[in-house]
Amino acid sequence: MRIAQIAPLAEAVPPKLYGGTERVVSWLTEALVEQGHEVTLFAAGGSNTAAKLIPGCDRSLRLKGIHDHTASNLVMLDKVRRHADEFDIIHCHIDVLQYPLFQDLSHKLVTTLHGRLDLPDTWPIYEAFPHMPLISISNKQREPLPAGLNWLATVYHGSPEKVCPFNEKGGDYLAFLGRLSAEKRPDRAIEIAKKAGVPLKIAAKIDDVDLAYFKAVVEPMLDHPLIEFIGEIDEDEKCSFIGNALALLFPIDWVEPFGLVMIEAMSAGTPVIAWREGSVPEIIQDGVSGIIVDSIDMAVDAVERVRSMDRRKVRRYFESRFTDKHMTRNYVDAYEKLLGVTRSRRPIESRKAIDGLRRRKDPRLDGTALFMTSDDDENRS
Amino acid sequence: MRIAQIAPLAEAVPPKLYGGTERVVSWLTEALVEQGHEVTLFAAGGSNTAAKLIPGCDRSLRLKGIHDHTASNLVMLDKVRRHADEFDIIHCHIDVLQYPLFQDLSHKLVTTLHGRLDLPDTWPIYEAFPHMPLISISNKQREPLPAGLNWLATVYHGSPEKVCPFNEKGGDYLAFLGRLSAEKRPDRAIEIAKKAGVPLKIAAKIDDVDLAYFKAVVEPMLDHPLIEFIGEIDEDEKCSFIGNALALLFPIDWVEPFGLVMIEAMSAGTPVIAWREGSVPEIIQDGVSGIIVDSIDMAVDAVERVRSMDRRKVRRYFESRFTDKHMTRNYVDAYEKLLGVTRSRRPIESRKAIDGLRRRKDPRLDGTALFMTSDDDENRS
Repeated sequence: MRIAQIAPLAEAVPPKLYGGTERVVSWLTEALVEQGHEVTLFAAGGSNTAAKLIPGCDRSLRLKGIHDHTASNLVMLDKVRRHADEFDIIHCHIDVLQYPLFQDLSHKLVTTLHGRLDLPDTWPIYEAFPHMPLISISNKQREPLPAGLNWLATVYHGSPEKVCPFNEKGGDYLAFLGRLSAEKRPDRAIEIAKKAGVPLKIAAKIDDVDLAYFKAVVEPMLDHPLIEFIGEIDEDEKCSFIGNALALLFPIDWVEPFGLVMIEAMSAGTPVIAWREGSVPEIIQDGVSGIIVDSIDMAVDAVERVRSMDRRKVRRYFESRFTDKHMTRNYVDAYEKLLGVTRSRRPIESRKAIDGLRRRKDPRLDGTALFMTSDDDENRS
Repeated sequence: MRIAQIAPLAEAVPPKLYGGTERVVSWLTEALVEQGHEVTLFAAGGSNTAAKLIPGCDRSLRLKGIHDHTASNLVMLDKVRRHADEFDIIHCHIDVLQYPLFQDLSHKLVTTLHGRLDLPDTWPIYEAFPHMPLISISNKQREPLPAGLNWLATVYHGSPEKVCPFNEKGGDYLAFLGRLSAEKRPDRAIEIAKKAGVPLKIAAKIDDVDLAYFKAVVEPMLDHPLIEFIGEIDEDEKCSFIGNALALLFPIDWVEPFGLVMIEAMSAGTPVIAWREGSVPEIIQDGVSGIIVDSIDMAVDAVERVRSMDRRKVRRYFESRFTDKHMTRNYVDAYEKLLGVTRSRRPIESRKAIDGLRRRKDPRLDGTALFMTSDDDENRS
């Protein structure tokens, strides 16, 4: 297939530091190329890919010091529009800006929603364009949206097996990794460690918006012999940090749509002690790849229980569900499902017919065509 | 003319409380209707207008508790698109979201930029679509943007004469009105008042983002017999608050693109003591409608000088440049200039020809047509 991947511009693909979505887009893009697909990546200049790169902007918006990404994304989407008839599938990872512009491409445009959907701000667009194909990153994620949307699938993120290598031995500390925000509940992690009498290492950056929370809640809890705050770490350090741990603590208090760090821990063989929130029950198999808890006391018990868990089984669970190969297969299935919906309207007997189909506008739309192609022109003349 | 006005959705038009852009759009819309134009207003439900209202959303996004306006604006723009061929002119007041979708309507779509343009975040869109017609609200405002854009005009805001009625007597206090943010420099206002020995009344709301600045800088300066902080006031109170003042203090420290409060003060006959920043030299006639200063000492001197200024001359200056009638005439001139540019490409001899022209796509674009109209279809068949 000829596939376009449309990445956020905040970071390069893959990102140099943080940037969960850009990392996932990178894994998917490289795996698609490896499988022989003809992939074009629209992403920030400076991205590194085996696909054809069309820069949406000259370098990542973080490096450019740009906070409002709207204008840059619109410019990138206009580039996508100019190339649209070169692709069988256009796969967007940037939420909502593409909707009005690409509404007549619903036969080949699919959007993965990467963010939380429990805030009403984006709902009007899904209500206005219910025919646009969507993919969620967990089943839980899509619950707040209205019924009747065109969900193609849930596709869980998957990382290459080598990214966080299996660590058979693990270690003797609990790990907390991520932003130090109220919804990630580092305070719970600290409480669990103190009650369990087990060391906790916190590797996290503190965003400006979280500084007040950090000062008020977290900092006063840090002065304890069991608690070590090691600050921000990079990608390479991250996997050894998680891999060398007894368990990852994931005591979230919000509807986390996925939680990439959980699969990175499982990849390293490190079980996850996670709160029963958001996507957690879909990602952790309780008792196999981690322990799902509802309270501090349950989590303290879990710290004892994980000592007897088989790290090889944790890794095998990761290998059976959350590699980039699983993700890529599921995405290709979704692409084929989308194209199949279109195909079923008219029998296809040749590559030429598929090529023609690619350019046909979505018959579900009664509006004006946003795109005319040379095929359409020929049909008219 | 058949004119569409596209307002921001943050507030109703006119706004119940704050909302400078929504207020200006309301003044323009009502004046256009009064002049016999056929006006359609796209704005939040609950707006109040003599034009035809097409709600972009059911009620203002502030009332809905929506912070990210993107999705709602996109849904509104899609409604505009469906009605686009019903208008001779489409006048956008919402910055950048309309660009890719409406790029082939540059013969009849004009955007007034209401915000600051000195931050790089929006620049990519102007660079990518330099042919799109723009209107600035001051000459100073447009300076940061690259050369070669399609500026039609600068059109200053204008308010109806009755909004802030002339107050011949004025009063004996200095007035400060607006957000208590660092760039508005309420600290300068307080310093001026104390040095001049003249009472200062501060009517202002404190936004969440400004709270830290208020606590650190402004609050400690308030405890003084000359300084009175009266909090947030509504539109009606605003005009008597300004009208009863000796002078308005406008000691800004940023590139303010317009500053509506300056013309409201002049409307009431109250001279403005303003820093030489942003649009100030374009709006205040030094020595006639106010005094332009560069320092605290100059401002303290100005407080003495304004006592001898003729408030009738201040009002007359407002009446000669900043009423809704001036603004509306200037906008209609800009609309005609835009249509004239198009007209000049082909002689027009009848209303029918104008109607046809209205639907033609911009020949400066080499891209694919975003809109097909029945005319286009007929031309093809």
